[in-house]
Amino acid sequence: MNVVPPTSASLIAALAGVLPNGGVLTEDEDLARYSRDWSGDHVGRPLAVARPSSVEEMSALMRHCHAQRIPVVPQGGLTGLVGAAVAADFGEVVISLERMNRIRSISPIDFAMVVEAGCILEDAKRAAEQSDCLLPITFGAQGSCRIGGNVATNAGGFNVLRYGMTRDLVLGLEVVLADGRIWNGLKVLRKDNRGYDLKQIFIGSEGTLGIVTAAALKLFPKPTQTETALVGLRSVEDAMALYARARRDCSDLLTAFELILRGGIEIAMREGADFPDPLTRAYPVYVLIEISAGGLIDLSAMLLGFLDRVTDLVEDGIVASTRAQAERLWLYREIMVERQGRGGRYLRTDVSVPISKLADFVAGALAALERSCPEALAVTYGHVGDGNIHLNVVPPESMAPAAVERLFEQAEAEIFAVVDRYGGSISAEHGIGRVKQKAFLERIDPVTLDIAAGIKQAFDPRHILSNGRILATRADHGL
Amino acid sequence: MNVVPPTSASLIAALAGVLPNGGVLTEDEDLARYSRDWSGDHVGRPLAVARPSSVEEMSALMRHCHAQRIPVVPQGGLTGLVGAAVAADFGEVVISLERMNRIRSISPIDFAMVVEAGCILEDAKRAAEQSDCLLPITFGAQGSCRIGGNVATNAGGFNVLRYGMTRDLVLGLEVVLADGRIWNGLKVLRKDNRGYDLKQIFIGSEGTLGIVTAAALKLFPKPTQTETALVGLRSVEDAMALYARARRDCSDLLTAFELILRGGIEIAMREGADFPDPLTRAYPVYVLIEISAGGLIDLSAMLLGFLDRVTDLVEDGIVASTRAQAERLWLYREIMVERQGRGGRYLRTDVSVPISKLADFVAGALAALERSCPEALAVTYGHVGDGNIHLNVVPPESMAPAAVERLFEQAEAEIFAVVDRYGGSISAEHGIGRVKQKAFLERIDPVTLDIAAGIKQAFDPRHILSNGRILATRADHGL
Repeated sequence: MNVVPPTSASLIAALAGVLPNGGVLTEDEDLARYSRDWSGDHVGRPLAVARPSSVEEMSALMRHCHAQRIPVVPQGGLTGLVGAAVAADFGEVVISLERMNRIRSISPIDFAMVVEAGCILEDAKRAAEQSDCLLPITFGAQGSCRIGGNVATNAGGFNVLRYGMTRDLVLGLEVVLADGRIWNGLKVLRKDNRGYDLKQIFIGSEGTLGIVTAAALKLFPKPTQTETALVGLRSVEDAMALYARARRDCSDLLTAFELILRGGIEIAMREGADFPDPLTRAYPVYVLIEISAGGLIDLSAMLLGFLDRVTDLVEDGIVASTRAQAERLWLYREIMVERQGRGGRYLRTDVSVPISKLADFVAGALAALERSCPEALAVTYGHVGDGNIHLNVVPPESMAPAAVERLFEQAEAEIFAVVDRYGGSISAEHGIGRVKQKAFLERIDPVTLDIAAGIKQAFDPRHILSNGRILATRADHGL
Repeated sequence: MNVVPPTSASLIAALAGVLPNGGVLTEDEDLARYSRDWSGDHVGRPLAVARPSSVEEMSALMRHCHAQRIPVVPQGGLTGLVGAAVAADFGEVVISLERMNRIRSISPIDFAMVVEAGCILEDAKRAAEQSDCLLPITFGAQGSCRIGGNVATNAGGFNVLRYGMTRDLVLGLEVVLADGRIWNGLKVLRKDNRGYDLKQIFIGSEGTLGIVTAAALKLFPKPTQTETALVGLRSVEDAMALYARARRDCSDLLTAFELILRGGIEIAMREGADFPDPLTRAYPVYVLIEISAGGLIDLSAMLLGFLDRVTDLVEDGIVASTRAQAERLWLYREIMVERQGRGGRYLRTDVSVPISKLADFVAGALAALERSCPEALAVTYGHVGDGNIHLNVVPPESMAPAAVERLFEQAEAEIFAVVDRYGGSISAEHGIGRVKQKAFLERIDPVTLDIAAGIKQAFDPRHILSNGRILATRADHGL
């Protein structure tokens, strides 16, 4: 980095001068919760934690860090899965967004809200609901993750097939640049073709190009009806055929189409009597279908009518007749995700392939794992309407830590090789961060790398922002 | 530009060496149709027209132009409205995409197609339909405009409220960079969070950052039902209230929600007996509503049910009961656009404001025009579901050309001042090009301008690509 770090004491005194009123934390017991992410897989003690409470404070902080070449890493709810938001071992100041958590405005007529980056997703969703609107970003971590992190990682989740990724929901951003200048791109316009759409550059850049401090987000009418079904199928091929027909017959009103292989259902069933085998017999493949709509559709008739038309694909299924039944069906999905690792570590993957290749991908990847890592348990599920599969690998309980590491490396290489074969992505929604950086850089072509490096250089010439996430560190470049 | 242009003859010989087989045109009669845009408002004779027929030829062409610092302007169907694609008066080579017009692939299972930049939008739409899919980009110029231009300008149109802008429909791009390198970002993945999403930078950049040579586009199930209605309303406020209720009651199945003020209807009525006053009496405001869906919805019942619920807003309306009737309703909209200028020049604007401000904007802008330009005719219509209004100004037929110029300048300043008051955009869908550059640069804040200039510098350091569109020319910068 070519950075001569100031002594810790003077660094901290200077930061505290920029952010008085408890804005800077330095004690070990205070730092603990900023040093470990949600998965527990990634830890890193920051030099200090800076907690600006306004965009002006963020601007002053970054002006100081830029002048002093202090490396920083913005941090939201720490629910990311690629180790991007914990401090790196070369010493970083964590910038927590937690004090910038206001909902600045909400307008059901504009179908838009303006939220600060530190606002917890669930709080923003609740505020939208109180205005009879829907903020559609939905996934397991929504009670902890923060809007800024959703934007910085272009978060996906269950509802992407209907409402898009976070990128598709962003109308405007407020960003503090590496040198502390404030870029005010906050607006609630639905259409705006005035020159380059600069917000797009920051979305999904994982904190490496600027610090998102607020976002204007699209809202939607809150659905007044939701129908949920769990169906059993013979194969992933049949699931994909079902998806194409569901899109057509249900007028793109699908809000979820989640694939779960039998192994995942069995993980949930191990919870006990509350989770019986959900259908009359076991099926190799299950799909959890959710459809949502507003007032003037008979949505229940639509779902039943659809299921009547696909009896060539769907042998058995259960349609929830109450909200409680629907929640119970979703619980199979949630319990499976929670329990898949048996409380220990497991390899997460998050890959995507063209929808037409998804069945081949699953078959190919599972066969490769079976050959090379027969002792491991593969858990396969995903948002298959988006071609997105989480194919996770759980080691045997007795395996020694070093062997587990080797297993993860080998399994990941096997899975990624099949992804490559089908022109897929090794990171559909989780991002690159540090965990996937090596695999990313091994696959990136020189033109793409050169463009990306040019953008990094233009936005953060001193490489102080989330250095070493996505792209290699300056030091790795020999700078 | 600090460019020492080679003599025309040697320039042309060198280009012809790069693109043999008739790839370079230089004769006046050949150049004519590349020298004037669709509106007829903008003309510019190029030094030559280069017509590469493959990405490799485009790459070789740009390598040559980069090495020789030859300014170029990529050109699609010439249907843009901001003068971006005709040659500038400092001398440019037009690069026509017309020979790169193949549909490379189409997959109804992936709901995706890969199309070369020179493919005419309507041809791409037809190919999608043959696969029982919908490519939703829809507007008047679709029989002439080309996909590359749609991408480069982030084209909007009628269906944005349901399917988004062109940006939202792009899954991947192939781009030839200013220096001739090929960036291959073509892919049909629905989700991909591998590092920076570079395609976003090229979309909407109006040819200033790279030349789009092919695009992977999202497709949708082709609707099997469409319902169309024209309703009469008391005010723009009521139209906006109707829109919010339509989104909710019709489950976001709206594919168009077009506002037309009475003056626009009267323009169509002047066509004669085929265009009678469409409702039982005249209304100040009309909305053309279109709803589309797939198989399992009673869409006609939905529309009628909706209209029954909004009798407090809708006093009178007509629902098309046949496809021919629906087309006739749309004809009022089309004829109005075609005839508004009475065959002469008129001022086009294309502005957007937050939806909640739209009624105030229309009232404010019309009042300002009435005060300052009482002799002009204002024609107001737009895609109001997106907050996007085309407020055009037609001069009196007898007005002298110099007076017309002054009228346009004054009227635009009045309209833009009201846009500014409501935090709106002076270009919702048409872009900046050269026509709106002055107004754009007057309003841009220094941070935004600095970021945009940094991006231009990173992608096109010699400023050979569409120089002087969006941003000022290098010469204007004193470079």
